Amino acid sequence: MNNDGGKGSYVEPEFNRDMNYIADRITRDSATWPVEPGRYRLIAARACPWANRAIIVRQLLGLEDVISMGLAGPVHDQRSWTFDLDPGGVDPVLGIERLQEAYFARIPDYERGITVPAMVDVPSGQVVTNNFPQITQDFFFEWRDHHRPDAPNLWPDDVREEMEEVMQRIFTEVNNGVYRCGFAGTQAAYDQAYDRLFAALDWLEERLTDRRYLMGDAITEADVRLFTTLARFDPVYHGHFKCNRNKLIEMPALWAYARDLFQTPGFGDTIDFDQIKAHYYVVHTDINPTQVIPKGPDLASWHEPHGREKLAA
Amino acid sequence: MNNDGGKGSYVEPEFNRDMNYIADRITRDSATWPVEPGRYRLIAARACPWANRAIIVRQLLGLEDVISMGLAGPVHDQRSWTFDLDPGGVDPVLGIERLQEAYFARIPDYERGITVPAMVDVPSGQVVTNNFPQITQDFFFEWRDHHRPDAPNLWPDDVREEMEEVMQRIFTEVNNGVYRCGFAGTQAAYDQAYDRLFAALDWLEERLTDRRYLMGDAITEADVRLFTTLARFDPVYHGHFKCNRNKLIEMPALWAYARDLFQTPGFGDTIDFDQIKAHYYVVHTDINPTQVIPKGPDLASWHEPHGREKLAA
Repeated sequence: MNNDGGKGSYVEPEFNRDMNYIADRITRDSATWPVEPGRYRLIAARACPWANRAIIVRQLLGLEDVISMGLAGPVHDQRSWTFDLDPGGVDPVLGIERLQEAYFARIPDYERGITVPAMVDVPSGQVVTNNFPQITQDFFFEWRDHHRPDAPNLWPDDVREEMEEVMQRIFTEVNNGVYRCGFAGTQAAYDQAYDRLFAALDWLEERLTDRRYLMGDAITEADVRLFTTLARFDPVYHGHFKCNRNKLIEMPALWAYARDLFQTPGFGDTIDFDQIKAHYYVVHTDINPTQVIPKGPDLASWHEPHGREKLAA
Repeated sequence: MNNDGGKGSYVEPEFNRDMNYIADRITRDSATWPVEPGRYRLIAARACPWANRAIIVRQLLGLEDVISMGLAGPVHDQRSWTFDLDPGGVDPVLGIERLQEAYFARIPDYERGITVPAMVDVPSGQVVTNNFPQITQDFFFEWRDHHRPDAPNLWPDDVREEMEEVMQRIFTEVNNGVYRCGFAGTQAAYDQAYDRLFAALDWLEERLTDRRYLMGDAITEADVRLFTTLARFDPVYHGHFKCNRNKLIEMPALWAYARDLFQTPGFGDTIDFDQIKAHYYVVHTDINPTQVIPKGPDLASWHEPHGREKLAA
């Protein structure tokens, strides 16, 4: 999501995520930004866990033909994510080198971080929104007419209330919790962050011992949101962010759950471990000044059988 | 062993250990430094793997009453290891605050790193030697008259030649190999160091699958030398030095072997994981600028049964 947008340093006594986004929405009834196949482009990056959510949901719902996707490279510079993976370093649809250009097209003096995911209006080249939790929710509720016929019900009514609570706890304690460990500027802030993170992982380990997915027998948005952090846990967060009570592979239920999702179309096929590692280890010079990228861990075991089918009713 | 002795930076394209030590020896026949109970003091630090060897061998051979021991704290400053764990910050026998003082007593313009282990002549306050591989070897061969009656034969004649080869490979590929990973200044140097390290660990994993100890049924100096690196592997080298293909606990034979030694008197009782972690994570600001010390990993499993007794003849 974030680059450091000129703030100079990620490391603060306690890490706080800037949650002010361009909050427009693309909706069925919007006069300004109506749902319209072919009009918008999702800009994401395989490295980024927040953008990874949107990549997964777009694919699960079969929106590939109505919302195009551009991918920035893993290693952005001080100013912006860049399209260095594309021929000529230019996004072939938007015709820009830096995602920053689409932010400036919308708000010329935009001062916050240039983040992914961003939904861009192709005709005007303007960012419509970078509000990541709203983006995936709107993919589900607002783009319904364009889902594939057998799209999963990612937001089931009957468990909605509990699911919101589960997602909130996962967001504050896990998705953000790993960053709170890694960017802690004091030992005390780190120690507290570590305890919070592993308390939440213990809760999830228990919850997933007798449930195949977080909300029961079917994949929901909550699983998407947890998966993107779990996929990065052993390759990055365990060492780089010092989330090292144990590796994910040492938590049997969580690890089998993560593999189960990884082996489900729409999940593992969105993961590029090399881009993930390059992003964190190269961009965060405050905590990895040498920018050397670890070769490990061995990731072949993501493809091993998970045995979770027996948990579904 | 090393502090950075004014060199300014550990991180070089490829890490090379300065192997020039004060090479005097304490021997039975020496006119200058003869073996003499009560005359010498071993200065070590629980944090340091090279000093840890001497702590272990002194204890295995029962030399505690004839060679006293002073312990420096884990976090030395730019200039020297210090006696900050002792009351008043002064070694009670040598009466000095910094190990540097004993080096300067010997060589006033001593310019190399102030390292542990060091053998200090108590009457003169001078360092006799800091040549760590020679120190433990001399503990065995030169101090024989003072060993406890049932002291182990750490240098058995019948396997001596092979043992020297094994120790050499362990030194260059494992003991030093982890540092070569951690202090690599380029991606290419790191990648090569990582491959060398894990090739050696794979060799050891295989060797220890059907041997209880490196040289067979009994503990030797070779085991001491491997153990001190293994004890630091998951708490430090895995994350801090990016030796992260896998944790030690993921290599079944090596992990059981390490626990077997840990649970043997003279080994685990010399290990202080908190001091070990503090040393590396605080001293190496080049690779951990925040100096935050990870809380993990969970180390309770070092006390679990190892099941290795069955391998001994």
